[in-house]
Amino acid sequence: MVPHLTTALSGPLLDLEKRILYKMPDIEHWFRTQWLDHSAPFYASVDLRNSGFKLAPVDINLFPAGFNNLNPDFISLSVQAATIAIEKVCPEAHRLLIIPENHSRNTYYLRNVIELTRILTAAGLEVRIGSISPEITEPTTLETPDGHTLLVEPIVREGNRLKLKNPELGDFDSCAILLNNDLSGGAPELLENLEQSLIPPLHAGWQTRRKTRHFSAYRDVATEFAQFLGIDEWLLNPYFERCDDIDFNARTGENCLAEKVDELIAKIKVKYTEYGITQDPFVIVKANAGTYGMGIMSVKSGEEMLGLNRKKRNKMSTIKEGQQVTEVIIQEGVYTFENIDEAVAEPVVYMMDHFVIGGFYRVHTNRDANENLNAPGAHFEPLAFESPCGLPDCTGEPDTVPNRFYAYSVVARLALLATTIELEETDPLNQ
Amino acid sequence: MVPHLTTALSGPLLDLEKRILYKMPDIEHWFRTQWLDHSAPFYASVDLRNSGFKLAPVDINLFPAGFNNLNPDFISLSVQAATIAIEKVCPEAHRLLIIPENHSRNTYYLRNVIELTRILTAAGLEVRIGSISPEITEPTTLETPDGHTLLVEPIVREGNRLKLKNPELGDFDSCAILLNNDLSGGAPELLENLEQSLIPPLHAGWQTRRKTRHFSAYRDVATEFAQFLGIDEWLLNPYFERCDDIDFNARTGENCLAEKVDELIAKIKVKYTEYGITQDPFVIVKANAGTYGMGIMSVKSGEEMLGLNRKKRNKMSTIKEGQQVTEVIIQEGVYTFENIDEAVAEPVVYMMDHFVIGGFYRVHTNRDANENLNAPGAHFEPLAFESPCGLPDCTGEPDTVPNRFYAYSVVARLALLATTIELEETDPLNQ
Repeated sequence: MVPHLTTALSGPLLDLEKRILYKMPDIEHWFRTQWLDHSAPFYASVDLRNSGFKLAPVDINLFPAGFNNLNPDFISLSVQAATIAIEKVCPEAHRLLIIPENHSRNTYYLRNVIELTRILTAAGLEVRIGSISPEITEPTTLETPDGHTLLVEPIVREGNRLKLKNPELGDFDSCAILLNNDLSGGAPELLENLEQSLIPPLHAGWQTRRKTRHFSAYRDVATEFAQFLGIDEWLLNPYFERCDDIDFNARTGENCLAEKVDELIAKIKVKYTEYGITQDPFVIVKANAGTYGMGIMSVKSGEEMLGLNRKKRNKMSTIKEGQQVTEVIIQEGVYTFENIDEAVAEPVVYMMDHFVIGGFYRVHTNRDANENLNAPGAHFEPLAFESPCGLPDCTGEPDTVPNRFYAYSVVARLALLATTIELEETDPLNQ
Repeated sequence: MVPHLTTALSGPLLDLEKRILYKMPDIEHWFRTQWLDHSAPFYASVDLRNSGFKLAPVDINLFPAGFNNLNPDFISLSVQAATIAIEKVCPEAHRLLIIPENHSRNTYYLRNVIELTRILTAAGLEVRIGSISPEITEPTTLETPDGHTLLVEPIVREGNRLKLKNPELGDFDSCAILLNNDLSGGAPELLENLEQSLIPPLHAGWQTRRKTRHFSAYRDVATEFAQFLGIDEWLLNPYFERCDDIDFNARTGENCLAEKVDELIAKIKVKYTEYGITQDPFVIVKANAGTYGMGIMSVKSGEEMLGLNRKKRNKMSTIKEGQQVTEVIIQEGVYTFENIDEAVAEPVVYMMDHFVIGGFYRVHTNRDANENLNAPGAHFEPLAFESPCGLPDCTGEPDTVPNRFYAYSVVARLALLATTIELEETDPLNQ
């Protein structure tokens, strides 16, 4: 079962999917050439939006959770891709320490860590889980409702190495450390100046990343790709603006915000008119650094940003781990026109190294097409992609399942490419 | 449906599979370390034999056909592995010319070329098929009974490049050329000193390869791996001997052959006694260079090699493309104890770069457990592996399906590693 688009594809997106399908070997060659110059992150997931007239990424996560939501039939694709990723980043590594999120007791998240461990073990690593959460003070076995268990151990720093100390299992000193913790709360000193390879590097955390930097790199990548494909880059690229020096509680920066929202709406409207799209344009206002969909608003005019009540201001001003929001991105909203049983569905595409290994839909029954599906309390049902993304059916219609997934894999990899450029720009070694 | 072993696993092989399973991450690490020093061939297939007490490769093909026999559910694994192989060998290649066997009209073989083309196209190459067969003098569309078609074009050499000339489709000048032709008839001049990358290289053809060289390299690899795993290398390694200066028609070398057969049988008998195996040892006598199972005998004593009748001598003296046999390998026979509905089944494992991408069983109803299943007239039914080979179920019994497939993937990769060493030894650049 795969979501169907409310509006059958007929307009620009169908044309886009046709071109993507037709140019498949050229596109793969284009990517291959790109990856000669750039190194993909170890892993990533990309949130896509498919509006029927536009297919665009809205976020990329460099510490992806949700591996448990992928189709178990294709887990061997993940193992193969993980093998390659390991060969590139730490070929001689025997042991790998995974640092999970601090809320590793969360059942859904726990299942993700278990699945990730399974993949990396099959790819040839001895894996143990070391927590930097102050709650984990001794080796702790966590259990999921479906009977899986995971041993989480406290991390000990000795000199410039992170280790596990466990009289029962033996100590653990790994060559490489995999972060599955997005450092929204800032990078702890514990992780600085390590001898061991830290994957991804520290500057991939939200203490350094900015969404605007990513989407600026994405705009360049999408523009180049659109030229190569002979299409309007807007079909792949969500417009955005940025506001700094915001303090929602002190009501600083509201006017700037309202102004830029209106400017962006006007810019989108031109495109909607050009393509005969009758929906109202909208934008998403969210923290420029951070994740987990806290501090997010969907608005249709700048006015809505003025005179926010206390509750909304509180919501906008704080993101995960209590961080204050001072910079926001105003991003073109892309309607979600994919539905399952009238529930809105948003595709999430997973990658290891530069390979798409699968994905799933976030299916949400209580949200509208212009709302964010990855928000606190936004409980979603995962629906695994029913087939891999790498094998389009060139003899089928452009909007058949494998072909739509192939289009997703292309756009997700454009976002991945943008991320590598973003990370090159912020790499301390390149400063 | 997967073949079951006639004898349930209980002896040394069960112990071997247990160790392989238990040491899975270490084994993957071991292979990773090996691949740091060696480059795997672009693709290969390995014929395995599973006797219940021994699991060993009996042949490796560097120009594998049979891609059409792989499980279509896992074709994305092949595409991903092909992408990697291309990135390593010819990352900038846009176009690829495949040179098939000269008998490309054979329907089964044709389906193989179609499937291979599909995989390589999805991996991002524009693929066309250029034949070196004198029969193909103009662009020829071949059709399979199931309605697939393939355009095969005659190859033209211009200077040091192979091209296709086609007024209708346009000419084709590729950066790389993939051989799916094992050159059993010798390497034609046409292929010498090409500017384009030839994959695999010319010295991977049977005009250069010798089975004894391969199994000598395999013996070393298996010995090292067996030490690492703490097992007897014989459980993975088929003994062999070699006889040169054979002329079956002139009855030259018969005595040498009979003597060596008896020596080898005696050597195997020692092992059979050690492990309490009650079957009669047997050996396979076959051409040291060449393929297609022509010129093959299964014998239980040297006496059987003496006084062969004319028919047998003719059969032994000639292999594919009319080549004369002058060297033979005498290889320890490994009983096939895998059965489906009382038919003998032999696993074949497929690899691209150093990744196992799947496999299938050759199922043959009219053969005995000690006969060769890849022989002329040996019509077999392919039975695709029902799951990928890379993901054992560590919580299951060692002889469950995914675990047996994992053991296959390990032994197949040992043979692959031996091949890389074999090709390094015969590489003209290393002479």
